[in-house]
Amino acid sequence: MASKVRVNQDLQRERDRANFNLEQLTYIFDGSREYTQKRRYLEKRIAEDPELKGGPNYYFLSNSEKYANGVRKATLLAKKLKEYKLGDFTDAFLLRSIIFPNEASPMSLQIDMFIPGIMGLGTEEQQRRWGEKAMAYEIIGTYAQTELGHGTHLRGLETTATYDPTTHEFVLHSPTLTSIKWWPGGLGKTTNHAIVMAMLYTRGKCHGLHAFMVQTRDLETHEPLPGVEVGDIGPKMGYHTVDNGYLRLDHLHIPRMNMLMKNSQVLEDGTYVRKKSDKLSYGTMLFVRSTIVKGVATNALAQAATIAVRYSAVRRQSELKPGGVEPQVLDYVTQQYKLFPVISQAYAFSAVGLHLRNLYLRLNYDIQQGNVELLAEIHSLTCGLKAFSTDQMMWSVEICRLSCGGHGFSQASGLPKIYDVHVPACTYEGENTVLYLQCGRSLVKALLQAQKGVTLSGSMAYLSQVCDDKCSVTSQVTVDALLKSYEWRARRAVHKAARMYKGRLQAGEADYNAWNQTGVHLVLAAKAHCHKYVLKTFAESIQQAEAGADVVRVLQQLCLLYATHGVTTNSGQFLECGFMDTRQLELVNDHMLRLLTDIRPNAVALVDAFDFTDDKLCSVLGRYDGQVYENLYKWARQSSRNETQVRIFTTVTPQ
Amino acid sequence: MASKVRVNQDLQRERDRANFNLEQLTYIFDGSREYTQKRRYLEKRIAEDPELKGGPNYYFLSNSEKYANGVRKATLLAKKLKEYKLGDFTDAFLLRSIIFPNEASPMSLQIDMFIPGIMGLGTEEQQRRWGEKAMAYEIIGTYAQTELGHGTHLRGLETTATYDPTTHEFVLHSPTLTSIKWWPGGLGKTTNHAIVMAMLYTRGKCHGLHAFMVQTRDLETHEPLPGVEVGDIGPKMGYHTVDNGYLRLDHLHIPRMNMLMKNSQVLEDGTYVRKKSDKLSYGTMLFVRSTIVKGVATNALAQAATIAVRYSAVRRQSELKPGGVEPQVLDYVTQQYKLFPVISQAYAFSAVGLHLRNLYLRLNYDIQQGNVELLAEIHSLTCGLKAFSTDQMMWSVEICRLSCGGHGFSQASGLPKIYDVHVPACTYEGENTVLYLQCGRSLVKALLQAQKGVTLSGSMAYLSQVCDDKCSVTSQVTVDALLKSYEWRARRAVHKAARMYKGRLQAGEADYNAWNQTGVHLVLAAKAHCHKYVLKTFAESIQQAEAGADVVRVLQQLCLLYATHGVTTNSGQFLECGFMDTRQLELVNDHMLRLLTDIRPNAVALVDAFDFTDDKLCSVLGRYDGQVYENLYKWARQSSRNETQVRIFTTVTPQ
Repeated sequence: MASKVRVNQDLQRERDRANFNLEQLTYIFDGSREYTQKRRYLEKRIAEDPELKGGPNYYFLSNSEKYANGVRKATLLAKKLKEYKLGDFTDAFLLRSIIFPNEASPMSLQIDMFIPGIMGLGTEEQQRRWGEKAMAYEIIGTYAQTELGHGTHLRGLETTATYDPTTHEFVLHSPTLTSIKWWPGGLGKTTNHAIVMAMLYTRGKCHGLHAFMVQTRDLETHEPLPGVEVGDIGPKMGYHTVDNGYLRLDHLHIPRMNMLMKNSQVLEDGTYVRKKSDKLSYGTMLFVRSTIVKGVATNALAQAATIAVRYSAVRRQSELKPGGVEPQVLDYVTQQYKLFPVISQAYAFSAVGLHLRNLYLRLNYDIQQGNVELLAEIHSLTCGLKAFSTDQMMWSVEICRLSCGGHGFSQASGLPKIYDVHVPACTYEGENTVLYLQCGRSLVKALLQAQKGVTLSGSMAYLSQVCDDKCSVTSQVTVDALLKSYEWRARRAVHKAARMYKGRLQAGEADYNAWNQTGVHLVLAAKAHCHKYVLKTFAESIQQAEAGADVVRVLQQLCLLYATHGVTTNSGQFLECGFMDTRQLELVNDHMLRLLTDIRPNAVALVDAFDFTDDKLCSVLGRYDGQVYENLYKWARQSSRNETQVRIFTTVTPQ
Repeated sequence: MASKVRVNQDLQRERDRANFNLEQLTYIFDGSREYTQKRRYLEKRIAEDPELKGGPNYYFLSNSEKYANGVRKATLLAKKLKEYKLGDFTDAFLLRSIIFPNEASPMSLQIDMFIPGIMGLGTEEQQRRWGEKAMAYEIIGTYAQTELGHGTHLRGLETTATYDPTTHEFVLHSPTLTSIKWWPGGLGKTTNHAIVMAMLYTRGKCHGLHAFMVQTRDLETHEPLPGVEVGDIGPKMGYHTVDNGYLRLDHLHIPRMNMLMKNSQVLEDGTYVRKKSDKLSYGTMLFVRSTIVKGVATNALAQAATIAVRYSAVRRQSELKPGGVEPQVLDYVTQQYKLFPVISQAYAFSAVGLHLRNLYLRLNYDIQQGNVELLAEIHSLTCGLKAFSTDQMMWSVEICRLSCGGHGFSQASGLPKIYDVHVPACTYEGENTVLYLQCGRSLVKALLQAQKGVTLSGSMAYLSQVCDDKCSVTSQVTVDALLKSYEWRARRAVHKAARMYKGRLQAGEADYNAWNQTGVHLVLAAKAHCHKYVLKTFAESIQQAEAGADVVRVLQQLCLLYATHGVTTNSGQFLECGFMDTRQLELVNDHMLRLLTDIRPNAVALVDAFDFTDDKLCSVLGRYDGQVYENLYKWARQSSRNETQVRIFTTVTPQ
């Protein structure tokens, strides 16, 4: 790639002086050489595919056109999955991420939730009945759970499914305004089916939330069916390509066999039969959350870092040396302090995401074998890591955008698009504060168990150790020493939350209130626990990396930067109780600053190794060739506002 | 207002139990009773003005329609300024902020920069020639300084203005791609004039940056004039209502008298004459930056808090007490911890903004009298406070948005609109990191002076005190005690940065490099200094407040929350060197949590007291009446995507 294009001289010089094997680092970031190769093969194939190459410039489309283009591409994605003979979900996710660069597909829930829902919740007959059609895109579905007035709290959902034994039908109904299904992707306009989560009533009794297959639109005319009101929920901060929708059901009758009955059944006479525990569906939830760490947080961090670092190498501004040439912005230590930690976060969360995938596979195997021992711990961990990774991602992406000055605010930078499409991950699949609280509560509960003599294992084992050691950081600032500090900090945070919780109980407060009053400290404990876990996983992944000494060296630098930067930005928690003293903290700070200098020569190479194509980044500032200015100018001239010299207004009439 | 509408019961109950005089607090937030009255009068008048009331719903407009509607409203604003007989700039700003709720006007630079530029930089004759026409909107202008490749560094600007004594003209030219003027608001399509900043060359010598009046478009046809290429720079993250533009000049000849010559002149024969120092224009820059603290940061914080707090009172979710009703989200301590500090920030920055306005008036008077003693200190302070206030604002607005869960991501929340239009304030009028560095450097320089025996005055006086005291926080956590802690922290941060800088010099590094290497600590020092200044100003404003004991009490709670929250979130800097010990820190943390409980009953009233109209907030979640769900539903149904049941696509053709 580099050889064919005229590359900005500053950027070329950066690349020339990199002193490690980029290719190896790319494999590590991707998880394996095979994955990298497959990704590149598919990227190339799509770039050359006559139906997919080119396409309109996303940034110049109206909201309406963005959706239309989304449907066009979603349809092509379905076609290409067949054409390229790509079978499994990993391939489908990969292909989608290439065809939709930092865009959401209006049919994404087809493979994210609709097909998995049929296969996971449906009987074998139901799997045959709908699964094959869904695989062939003969029916297009979504998953409707969240309601206008209800999100996190599943027991609060109001949609009802009442069984009528005389007709052998369920009557699905939205009894209130707040029960209208709200937010599901593709629900508004694109899909014709939905798995609807509703409170099941039979023989006068409520049996809680169950899944029902509902056809929402006619397969020929695409008109909504009687009893079904569907529509788009209106413009959002991002996700313009998707028709997030609403669904209001008015006594809609569906056959009994439209209840997905793998785990529970309603018999013809209305008898309710529960067959299986829902431990398995926990597994799916864990899987989705773990994919967010790699697919969303890591991906967004790495892209934002790529754009900001490349642009900072090209952009020259102000003066350092009086009368000297304007330096590259990347030579300002304040800029390095903004961007290099983001690079380290991307590599750290990549390691965590890959690790979680393996953990999930092991867990899934265990569950299939009836062993659910690890489930609670991994559930807690996944809650925390989903929240922690997306949390850091959101602030870091904005820091990258701000580091690009005014041009960062232009859509040409690609950074607003990255932010808008990925920041919802802080809210969907478990709102972050809710997840932190779950994680924090489970840590406190584990500690209380440990205090009763129960031995903790896995990621929580360190909690039962004593809390009175001192920081061992000396003039040698190492990851090992810092890891012990992170453990101390997390342990102390959990102990503190536990103490507060117990104190409230002892003061006579009700249990629920004691938890609520401890909320702020539960979140802190969860963050400290996750932070430690990320550092540990990152460090271990480097030990296991199949790579040369040069690659290991830069990864170790990044890992130590991740560790020292985390201490610096959370220093209070390390200084508490005199665990770390001010001198030690200053050693860590100084070492962090030195690492910025060490990493500086490799900065551009470290983001190049993420190996994003220009098609993926959609960024003028982050172009591989660094020809930023001439392309900003070209880009601007394409803007629809420049189609005429004198602006002809669309008429805007007051309502 | 409250009496006429059906208010959500939860919200009404919140209002009923408020225990302070809202009206008094509104006057304090606004700065005076007179201002509140004037604002309300204008809000009412505009709401009833047949030409202004109603109008299209911003959220459902295309990018193109947003601009068209912006021009329509900007034109009406000009008309109304005359019609309402509003003379001064304060009135003009106020009227604009009402007509453009969280939107930018495509003609905003007319009153922000174009007219002030003519008046500040033009001779009396030039003021007569262009000033009156500009006031009457017979010419529409902007201010073109930033270039494609150059922002912060003014000496790096490349546009040239070369005097030709044979024709008595200046030749304005964009010699390179990077010299194209880029970003000025209204430059692309709306305006027909621009004050262009260019490097002045006469008699073969460059005299630096000067201002030139350039007509860009024909006053009749609005076509660009020969030698002028103008256009829109393309879509941005926000500011859709504005045609931020580019300007490429190709040897454009303008008369000699189009140079704005109040401070410097080029005579007919090409002789360059400098008349005045530019201290005065510093004053303008300070003024603009100080208005950002109140007009942008405070305004955005207060609006975001209003929306999130009201919605959190209406929204019920999950359970605290097992089996109990779903509680208001506002009853979760984690939610209070997110939102109440934002309320305190809004009141704190309001006090700072009002204080800076007075400081500016005094400074301006001093400068007119030839006294520039205070200039350097106030310049440094204003740099820091502009950065500090917009910095906190940006994170806080996003925290408010996230606190609203999924609905926060909908444009219906109003929060993305607030973010997109206000976040550029982190970059414009001095990029925040650049400003922090300026502030930090001036603090270090002052300290070095003090160490040589110079007495520091004003906001820097505390720097010369010794650094070895201990924190006086005991079981009584008070603002006074914490203010001393903030002083200690800031002083130590400045001392530390100074030590690092001097250490680098002593190690033989060049001065510029020593500054650069100290950058991270200069930013920390500047933030600590500003944080202290904000707390001090807020506390003093309460002492001076004309208000009853009830209002003073809630303000004191907010001030103490601001103080304790700042310690909690920056605890490391207070624990360093053992200044504060862990027990003291825990006292502060505990007190902060108690304050959340104390503030809870007044939370809704505290945001009501900001006194924003629904027209201003443009938020379904933040409606005064709290009727959130039925209006989300109504709002969604208005969306253009719901105009037809079956979506008819706009054709999207690949390029």
